[in-house]
Amino acid sequence: MDYDRYDRIRAVQWQGDHLRLLDQRLLPQQERWIDCANAAQVTQAIKDLAVRGAPAIGIAAAWGVALAAKQGESLDAALSMLRAARPTAVNLMWALDRMMARIAAGADAAALEHEAKAIQDEDLLANRHMGQLGASLIAPHSGVLTHCNTGSLATAGYGTALGVIRAGVAAGRIEQVFAGETRPWQQGARLTMWELVRDGIPAKLIADSAASHLMKSGVIQWVIVGADRIAANGDTANKIGTYQLAIAARHHGVKFMVVAPSSTVDMATATGDDIEIELRDPAELLAVAGQRTVVEGADAWNPVFDVTPAELIDAIVTERGVIERPNAGVMQLMFLA
Amino acid sequence: MDYDRYDRIRAVQWQGDHLRLLDQRLLPQQERWIDCANAAQVTQAIKDLAVRGAPAIGIAAAWGVALAAKQGESLDAALSMLRAARPTAVNLMWALDRMMARIAAGADAAALEHEAKAIQDEDLLANRHMGQLGASLIAPHSGVLTHCNTGSLATAGYGTALGVIRAGVAAGRIEQVFAGETRPWQQGARLTMWELVRDGIPAKLIADSAASHLMKSGVIQWVIVGADRIAANGDTANKIGTYQLAIAARHHGVKFMVVAPSSTVDMATATGDDIEIELRDPAELLAVAGQRTVVEGADAWNPVFDVTPAELIDAIVTERGVIERPNAGVMQLMFLA
Repeated sequence: MDYDRYDRIRAVQWQGDHLRLLDQRLLPQQERWIDCANAAQVTQAIKDLAVRGAPAIGIAAAWGVALAAKQGESLDAALSMLRAARPTAVNLMWALDRMMARIAAGADAAALEHEAKAIQDEDLLANRHMGQLGASLIAPHSGVLTHCNTGSLATAGYGTALGVIRAGVAAGRIEQVFAGETRPWQQGARLTMWELVRDGIPAKLIADSAASHLMKSGVIQWVIVGADRIAANGDTANKIGTYQLAIAARHHGVKFMVVAPSSTVDMATATGDDIEIELRDPAELLAVAGQRTVVEGADAWNPVFDVTPAELIDAIVTERGVIERPNAGVMQLMFLA
Repeated sequence: MDYDRYDRIRAVQWQGDHLRLLDQRLLPQQERWIDCANAAQVTQAIKDLAVRGAPAIGIAAAWGVALAAKQGESLDAALSMLRAARPTAVNLMWALDRMMARIAAGADAAALEHEAKAIQDEDLLANRHMGQLGASLIAPHSGVLTHCNTGSLATAGYGTALGVIRAGVAAGRIEQVFAGETRPWQQGARLTMWELVRDGIPAKLIADSAASHLMKSGVIQWVIVGADRIAANGDTANKIGTYQLAIAARHHGVKFMVVAPSSTVDMATATGDDIEIELRDPAELLAVAGQRTVVEGADAWNPVFDVTPAELIDAIVTERGVIERPNAGVMQLMFLA
């Protein structure tokens, strides 16, 4: 398998004494890097959405702890600061728990650096494995639609849902790729299209609201998305609009695949109803690219995630394997075994 | 009924010797008027989307014919030029057919001016009547979601779907109004929110992809939209995203209402499959507010309408009455009788 052909992007780069992050707020217009020398700077980058995507946030946070140790800062303070940076992404908590366990076991700065590197390296390997697993579900000559950005930018590299698309294209199974623009932040338009063009994968952007019309045309066989948190019954929190795509997919007989590392699965959350949905500033909908597009005095409702119930999901792919038709029983077999 | 309270906007204004059009491309940032002194200028305004909304396009085109007569221009040339300005909107054809019938009957310039005025006046009356009919279907304390712009800007005044919302708010039946932003042209964000704020109707903007999450929350009972063309079986072509809303509404038990003047009904088009869907320039998705937001080299698929099948529509409201659960049989009873 020639992984490198469609995988040239690394957005989180450890530099030995600091962390370099590709500032995702400025893509695709500018490729600017942010250097973080301590945990506070990493926290700020996560809060400001300079780094985004659940796995990438977890990896950056792990490096934040390693940096705190290197600088002789308080590790407790670093952990709680990083933990509070984003409420919904469970990978953040998972990565910090993993660093905390090493701290509790008496790890020094070098050992914490090693642990952060392991989290990052394992994520890349997991993504490549998930890519293979997910692509094997897709019939030759298929078209697929993805949402938001779940690619190299959102992970250590390769991506989750976009990793399956990379693998499916490399294997000759996927012939057409569509990406929803993903309002209000435009992650699909700005980031996914940037990755796909960068890595030479032909793709077309669509308005989020054009997905059903696309499905009706018969061009796509799978919707493939990532996840911010997967509950114990398979209900999946992901970028706003994911739920709408799942409803439309079921209506058209299009299959729906969720791709995420097992660290995204939160067996302590029983169902999607227990997942806190982040509401962000209405201003994100009232202006586009810094220009006010909506009349003064207007209000907006801006939830940034939604929950797709397990019964609308045909397959959940993690690095541990594929769960078809997820429910609490099969989830338990794979994630509590 | 105090119509005026929520109805202060007129975007198509006859000035005795020319037509004034509120340039909808510049709203809400600027309120600039375009003066059209001949049919070619009206055609250009329709082509450029300075005037938009199926009924408003028809009205403007009728005034274009009246202007041609006033200026002593060729009426045949004016008719065919105006007819070619937009392919999907059937009201355009309907209004021009009506003007053509008057020309065939030997009408002079004054009579054609009178006919254009009649088309405009009848549209306003039809909208107010539809507003009453549609609002009567809505239970007290309801929330509603609309898409695109179907208000005063899109018609002679008051609006179709937005007219039902105006009437429902005035009658105290509608308590919460949500508007989808309607990518890529942002008619909901730019125009509908402008109208609602202007007319003092409290409303919230949502991302198009947040509609299903909103429906799941139980806040809305109806989706209310306009139409660009209604086929003989009730299938309805409307702004891209309408079909997706209809699928989501049915999934959640939310009712779906289409509001349009009977001139939008095209009994010569058997079903939605026979409706030509306008594909517009991919550039509309690749830039926002004049700024390129997507990487160079990226492609996009940009259909601007879709078709909602009649079986997903709970009610079609025209000025002739309400059709519940539309199908070819009941459509024929109302529109071929």
